[in-house]
Amino acid sequence: METLTTNNVWMMICTALVFFMHLGFALLEIGLTRQKNTINILFKNIFIITVGLLLYCLVGFNLMYPGEFNGFIGFGGFGLEAPLTESGSLDLSYNKGYTYWTDFLFQGMFAATAATIVSGAVAERIKIGSFMIFTILYVGFVYPIAGSWKWGGGFLDNLDTPFYDFAGSTLVHSVGGWAAVVAVCLLGARIGKFKDGRIQAIPGHNIPIATAGVLILWLGWFGFNGGSVLSADPELTSLTLVTTCLAAAAGGAVSAIVSGIMFKNLDLTVFLNGILGGLVGITAGADQMSPTDAIIIGAVAGSLIVFAVSLIDRLRLDDPVGAIAVHLVCGIWGTLAVGLFGNLAGGAQFLSQLVGIGSYALICIVSSFIIIFTLKKTVGIRVSEREELEGLDGYEHGMDAYPDFRMNEH
Amino acid sequence: METLTTNNVWMMICTALVFFMHLGFALLEIGLTRQKNTINILFKNIFIITVGLLLYCLVGFNLMYPGEFNGFIGFGGFGLEAPLTESGSLDLSYNKGYTYWTDFLFQGMFAATAATIVSGAVAERIKIGSFMIFTILYVGFVYPIAGSWKWGGGFLDNLDTPFYDFAGSTLVHSVGGWAAVVAVCLLGARIGKFKDGRIQAIPGHNIPIATAGVLILWLGWFGFNGGSVLSADPELTSLTLVTTCLAAAAGGAVSAIVSGIMFKNLDLTVFLNGILGGLVGITAGADQMSPTDAIIIGAVAGSLIVFAVSLIDRLRLDDPVGAIAVHLVCGIWGTLAVGLFGNLAGGAQFLSQLVGIGSYALICIVSSFIIIFTLKKTVGIRVSEREELEGLDGYEHGMDAYPDFRMNEH
Amino acid sequence: METLTTNNVWMMICTALVFFMHLGFALLEIGLTRQKNTINILFKNIFIITVGLLLYCLVGFNLMYPGEFNGFIGFGGFGLEAPLTESGSLDLSYNKGYTYWTDFLFQGMFAATAATIVSGAVAERIKIGSFMIFTILYVGFVYPIAGSWKWGGGFLDNLDTPFYDFAGSTLVHSVGGWAAVVAVCLLGARIGKFKDGRIQAIPGHNIPIATAGVLILWLGWFGFNGGSVLSADPELTSLTLVTTCLAAAAGGAVSAIVSGIMFKNLDLTVFLNGILGGLVGITAGADQMSPTDAIIIGAVAGSLIVFAVSLIDRLRLDDPVGAIAVHLVCGIWGTLAVGLFGNLAGGAQFLSQLVGIGSYALICIVSSFIIIFTLKKTVGIRVSEREELEGLDGYEHGMDAYPDFRMNEH
Repeated sequence: METLTTNNVWMMICTALVFFMHLGFALLEIGLTRQKNTINILFKNIFIITVGLLLYCLVGFNLMYPGEFNGFIGFGGFGLEAPLTESGSLDLSYNKGYTYWTDFLFQGMFAATAATIVSGAVAERIKIGSFMIFTILYVGFVYPIAGSWKWGGGFLDNLDTPFYDFAGSTLVHSVGGWAAVVAVCLLGARIGKFKDGRIQAIPGHNIPIATAGVLILWLGWFGFNGGSVLSADPELTSLTLVTTCLAAAAGGAVSAIVSGIMFKNLDLTVFLNGILGGLVGITAGADQMSPTDAIIIGAVAGSLIVFAVSLIDRLRLDDPVGAIAVHLVCGIWGTLAVGLFGNLAGGAQFLSQLVGIGSYALICIVSSFIIIFTLKKTVGIRVSEREELEGLDGYEHGMDAYPDFRMNEH
Repeated sequence: METLTTNNVWMMICTALVFFMHLGFALLEIGLTRQKNTINILFKNIFIITVGLLLYCLVGFNLMYPGEFNGFIGFGGFGLEAPLTESGSLDLSYNKGYTYWTDFLFQGMFAATAATIVSGAVAERIKIGSFMIFTILYVGFVYPIAGSWKWGGGFLDNLDTPFYDFAGSTLVHSVGGWAAVVAVCLLGARIGKFKDGRIQAIPGHNIPIATAGVLILWLGWFGFNGGSVLSADPELTSLTLVTTCLAAAAGGAVSAIVSGIMFKNLDLTVFLNGILGGLVGITAGADQMSPTDAIIIGAVAGSLIVFAVSLIDRLRLDDPVGAIAVHLVCGIWGTLAVGLFGNLAGGAQFLSQLVGIGSYALICIVSSFIIIFTLKKTVGIRVSEREELEGLDGYEHGMDAYPDFRMNEH
Repeated sequence: METLTTNNVWMMICTALVFFMHLGFALLEIGLTRQKNTINILFKNIFIITVGLLLYCLVGFNLMYPGEFNGFIGFGGFGLEAPLTESGSLDLSYNKGYTYWTDFLFQGMFAATAATIVSGAVAERIKIGSFMIFTILYVGFVYPIAGSWKWGGGFLDNLDTPFYDFAGSTLVHSVGGWAAVVAVCLLGARIGKFKDGRIQAIPGHNIPIATAGVLILWLGWFGFNGGSVLSADPELTSLTLVTTCLAAAAGGAVSAIVSGIMFKNLDLTVFLNGILGGLVGITAGADQMSPTDAIIIGAVAGSLIVFAVSLIDRLRLDDPVGAIAVHLVCGIWGTLAVGLFGNLAGGAQFLSQLVGIGSYALICIVSSFIIIFTLKKTVGIRVSEREELEGLDGYEHGMDAYPDFRMNEH
């Protein structure tokens, strides 16, 4: 009982920290885009948190943790139903690490993350109504069903060598990342991004806010990874925080160095995305790595960021905040790294990691394509050229983010 | 002993989170007002935290928790006096959930909140000196005396069916809200708000900052409600976090929908205030509700926000940040909801809730009227027209919030 | 074991809070400087966190806690080496309050702080490459070696009456402060700061961001001081939070009053620095003071801020953010206060405090002089006049912090 109390305190704090990541995502996203679309992005992000949580309560939790099921899809019923003891109070034997309520809330805070990742990639040109429909379907159904394959005890958890994804390099970050790729392909680039065959940088309008967002995300990762231990086990939680922070540091430092060598500049945005890349990279195996492993994984992620951002640009995919590089590329890397480093390293594990990555690629690409393509062919997914040029804030929301400030003409 | 340690850790974390709400309030308030009054608002908020905490140490804590008293007003003496064991160390049997020091600090962080709520409603036109005097009297004396009626074991705690207010829908939020109404009435509207008989929107100057404020407040509510359990009891704390978050989500989502239907727009400010309304609404009974109850309470609060903001405007009350709608209207609603939903629902409870609401209305309206009316008739409460038009920052503080930025003329 | 788990949870949370202080420092520093150098400052701060953590892993932790050593300098070997039990799992008897991993990470978060303090003082004119070299040497070597003198069990911990510095008024804040003095002397003032023999105020460009920084720092101090108990001991941790918050409140309130009386204004920046001064002042003895002691210590610190800022200006030292006044002056004051107030007060203790202060002055002034003077004579430490006038962001980073906003000409 006493152990449960302590564990549950830790898990509730981690829940709060993961919740706070939504502020980090929101600030990062608006900071790296233009001021004329700020209200729109904030509205999307607030929508994701609120509606995401309600949907996870209504259907998501019981889709993701359906109990006994066929390993591919199961549903435990609508709403929340807390396990009770005979005397009618909450059954605290539910789990050694937390109560039923904590379990729901911690997982619920994760759920909205997937859509948030997509939000960054499609910013500044998507129709908000279509994005809202996408969010409802992706957060409410795709994310939890895909999640059940591993965390709900589904088929990927039952391979001979089970697929391993500690805190969601694949289950959360790649799930967002794959949908981001599909959405960006179907949506097209922002006007002016690829002009006369050349790549034009579109600078973000508020870099201090974006930087704050990244540091808030790093803070939130203390809960994202630390809470994924699912108890306050002192060895595992503290090791996890060490590997998480060292990977973040290595990711940032190496991305800054690589970018400095390649482009002869000290690019803060790359530095920030390098930190995030390191964090996403360590997420799949944060509890299985030594500090040295974590530094290597973070360093590779930091290098990948520089090359991936450049490659994605050259593929003519317009991802305003670098979400695909950070969440998909580093998510895949981190998932593979579980087979290469740390306690689980080995050929069989590496193969299982590939199977996991492939399975999530499949469900995410197919489902997000069906949703977004259908939206495109019916209600449309892209705002008008005029709206895009003048900014979504005025058109969709009738508001300015900074009405007292005088802006530059673009 | 071990249980106390764990409980105390939880309570200290909650204390930190409630402290952090002051940043949330400050950012929300400046974000929803004009840049020319930003320094003034920040100064007020910093004043409230620092002086509020010192006053609570000097007199507030012992006014609010006087020990044995007549149920209406009592005073345990100036300053803090920690209970000691015979050997001179701190008596840890003070409470199962926390030490004497934690008790003081947690309650002290609550105390300043009441004045912060008023600060938002009177922003952009109140004389700072008068506001400082009001704060000292209201936070130092009115809030703790009113609080003693229930949390200090006073007469509202001793009704046949005791009045119930878990974390302060009434004791904190309405206490601020009633004073806000009185202050706004005595102060009058900002120049230009009601022009030629029409309501003019005065847009806030930094919506990203306001949004960050709301998410910080939501985070802080993990501690505000979670800590009001007064221990780390795993069942009650985790249920409380679930009801708190679901009410916030429902409040936001419903306010956005209702506002979308009524005004055909996607108004971010309404969305944000809907979240806050949901949070204030659930606060009185967060530990007594099921998730479904919480969603209903939040949803009603979210609708109330839309109508209340509109009604308050039509009553020609100028509340720049919507503090009255959020804290008073939803505070009353949440307090009544304890009689309608959850474990305590019933006619007798509903009546007690009405008695409680009425009692607080009485003490708050009377005391804030006496304070503010006296200030009005002596030193004055409103800045000069010229100062209001040019902004309080230059006149009262000799500073600009954003001196490097070029501003629009208004 | 159960106790360890609870203690370790508290320590991990405190670690997260100290990490978050780096956001506070970054926001404070950019807020109090001009927009044209914002990217540069953010880059420096992100560099400090990431590289500081990696260096602390590589050498710092084992320089600061070398085990048995001569009391002046020792080194336990490169990298981290976790103590294991015979069966190969982590040896949890390492400490009653935390695991080896938590110990490293908590101390690592402290390490970067010293360089961050310097960063503020040298802002807007230092060459970033030279600052990066300084950071590597100062955070990687000087800070941990100096730290070992007390916290590593070195000679200052073995005086007859041991020098006392609970959480680092001297070991962290003065260590940064002394280097800041040296750096400012060698670097010279910003162009325009002392013009025609008169002191020109150079206003900070984003006061809301700076205010947010201070409140985040205050929040972080819950972990900085609360975690320095090195366990979750309910009496000590909760007393520490109370003294910390009361000193902050008193520091802010008194600095505002003193400044109000002396300069007839309500200066928000002074208010903010007063809060920080109170926090730095209480840090050396936060676990040894009564609430009344804490208020006195904070109040003195608040007054010192007003006079010190003014004095430093008159000495023609250009410290854009007031780092020397906050961290050095109040750091010295707080260290001395341990000999004057609270449980340890007494002549012998006061003397030991003086010895400690002197020892740190010596090592910090000498080492930072050698580093910075060498840099000055080789690669140079100051940007060109043209770069300084046009801003470091364009020259060193090729980026604007706020490209969509129109700026005033200066």
